[in-house]
Amino acid sequence: MTDKPQHLLLRALRGETVERPPVWMMRQAGRYLPEYMTLRAKYDFFTRVETPELACEITLQPIDIIGPDAAIIFSDILVIPQALGVKVLLEENKGPILPDTISTQADIDRLQVEGAAERLDYVCQAISMTKKALNGRVPLIGFAGAPFTILCYMVEGKGSKNFDKAKQFCFSQPHLAHALLQKITDATISYLRAQVAAGADCIQVFDSWSGMLAPADFDLYALPYLRQIADAISPLCPVILFPKGSWYALPQLAETSAAAVGVDWTISPKYARILTGSKLTVQGNFDPIKLLTTPAQIKKDVTKMINDFGPQRYIANLGHGILPHVPVDNAKAFVDAVKEYTV
Amino acid sequence: MTDKPQHLLLRALRGETVERPPVWMMRQAGRYLPEYMTLRAKYDFFTRVETPELACEITLQPIDIIGPDAAIIFSDILVIPQALGVKVLLEENKGPILPDTISTQADIDRLQVEGAAERLDYVCQAISMTKKALNGRVPLIGFAGAPFTILCYMVEGKGSKNFDKAKQFCFSQPHLAHALLQKITDATISYLRAQVAAGADCIQVFDSWSGMLAPADFDLYALPYLRQIADAISPLCPVILFPKGSWYALPQLAETSAAAVGVDWTISPKYARILTGSKLTVQGNFDPIKLLTTPAQIKKDVTKMINDFGPQRYIANLGHGILPHVPVDNAKAFVDAVKEYTV
Repeated sequence: MTDKPQHLLLRALRGETVERPPVWMMRQAGRYLPEYMTLRAKYDFFTRVETPELACEITLQPIDIIGPDAAIIFSDILVIPQALGVKVLLEENKGPILPDTISTQADIDRLQVEGAAERLDYVCQAISMTKKALNGRVPLIGFAGAPFTILCYMVEGKGSKNFDKAKQFCFSQPHLAHALLQKITDATISYLRAQVAAGADCIQVFDSWSGMLAPADFDLYALPYLRQIADAISPLCPVILFPKGSWYALPQLAETSAAAVGVDWTISPKYARILTGSKLTVQGNFDPIKLLTTPAQIKKDVTKMINDFGPQRYIANLGHGILPHVPVDNAKAFVDAVKEYTV
Repeated sequence: MTDKPQHLLLRALRGETVERPPVWMMRQAGRYLPEYMTLRAKYDFFTRVETPELACEITLQPIDIIGPDAAIIFSDILVIPQALGVKVLLEENKGPILPDTISTQADIDRLQVEGAAERLDYVCQAISMTKKALNGRVPLIGFAGAPFTILCYMVEGKGSKNFDKAKQFCFSQPHLAHALLQKITDATISYLRAQVAAGADCIQVFDSWSGMLAPADFDLYALPYLRQIADAISPLCPVILFPKGSWYALPQLAETSAAAVGVDWTISPKYARILTGSKLTVQGNFDPIKLLTTPAQIKKDVTKMINDFGPQRYIANLGHGILPHVPVDNAKAFVDAVKEYTV
């Protein structure tokens, strides 16, 4: 499974008894760190993503400053559309734009699955470089967007409140939706295999928009592709599935080959345990807005969260990405509170 | 309770056996109707809301064109901040703007609960006028925004993806949040009592943003105020509570004095029945995007939805507001599918 079996995160993912839960923060690399802002002022987003030295440096920043139990490689979920041959534009402080949206069979036929993983070799280089620099301090998490979420961006062409156009595409032309989802899935599996080969100790799959789907539609457009990814990658390293908002799918996700499932704050820790039947490790689910209170309040709330989940088979994390205006001391209070927890 | 006990909607709200479920559509008045667009081109939003003759005409349009089993008065949830003395600006096709946001005790002290309902007398006039024009054809639903949702707009000052600022206000200054929520609740109860006195047969309370709250925070910032409203209005007429996204609160909502609870499409009909223990009527939960498929597909999906909820103690509706670009024939297919359903 891994050459670092002693790491707290990997032990929690294997369901081993731990002395305290491991902790990391989603999108911990960047955003709220002044050290990141300095790099951001010098290099545009895709330069930071595509330059292994920069991605490595950004990945390491929170490890040195905040001290979580895992690093997550600095990258973006939209590298998959890029690798499939779709243009992605990104202006700072604005969402991504994909000017050539997918709407027809011809659009899907043009997507180049072959060679997609190779075109993302810069991510694997960043992983190798980071792995070396970490030198066993903490494990390194690789990641990708889930196929439904990537479809959302490829069809909608930009971020959206409800991804109406993407959902309409699925509901009106399900055969096209499935063809697109399968191509994304195939490229993603190759890409994640390469991340593991480069040194990723664990993989998280972000389904950021699956929560827009009704349970029956999640079963059609999200779950089968998450399952394909989990089945392909789990023999290589532990997989964390994080379909944000899709609390209703927890019983089914607990039956996949994934080692863990992420939950957001709109499900109580106790109910998340009930729905997963304690069959796998659960990760989450601190409301990111609560990082804007005080260090003392954060520590109190974190302790309650760990007690509610129970400290075993649990990874402390936020329920969604950290906000850019969180004070560094508050982010540190979150990590410290978990580290100070005693079973 | 009501002088029109035979209306299908009111019978379903009382839990009586019906020959088919009643149907209406959230925000059925306006948006997708060409007849509404004609009025919209002539009068700005608040002129349409504040002129009883216009609000009445807009409320009746879908009754004549689409034929649902209930009318809902054309108005806006942000009339409550206005009545409390807060400026609300609205540009067409953009969200509302409240330039004077609430952040201090002094801001809250300035809000004028006394006379708030009286300042909304134009809504009651519109209700009386519409009631007369309906002449018993279908019952008339009055409504208000729930206190937490109104707080969101008053603190954030505008629509938002996650209402970070409003939630931060609650989490950082809970005593101020509760003072504000109580003032909104007091004004809302007076306002809803006036709506019933003017002829509303039933009241729906929209908690459009409560789904942003963790279950424990819903218990603090949303539920107590929903309960106060339900308790105050239920002796006068049936109350439907619709806290969008707050599926986790269904067991508690089922224990309130409300006659029904609305659910969105992210909970399956069967699970909604399990969580409410079949103790009250459930309303929902068609994914609004599915109105962009075809009339044939809509009829198939509606029939499945009714079968999944079961036709008794059920009100067919969307899980959220209708989209402006829904073809009128598709909206009609939704209503027709329910009307054609036979138990």
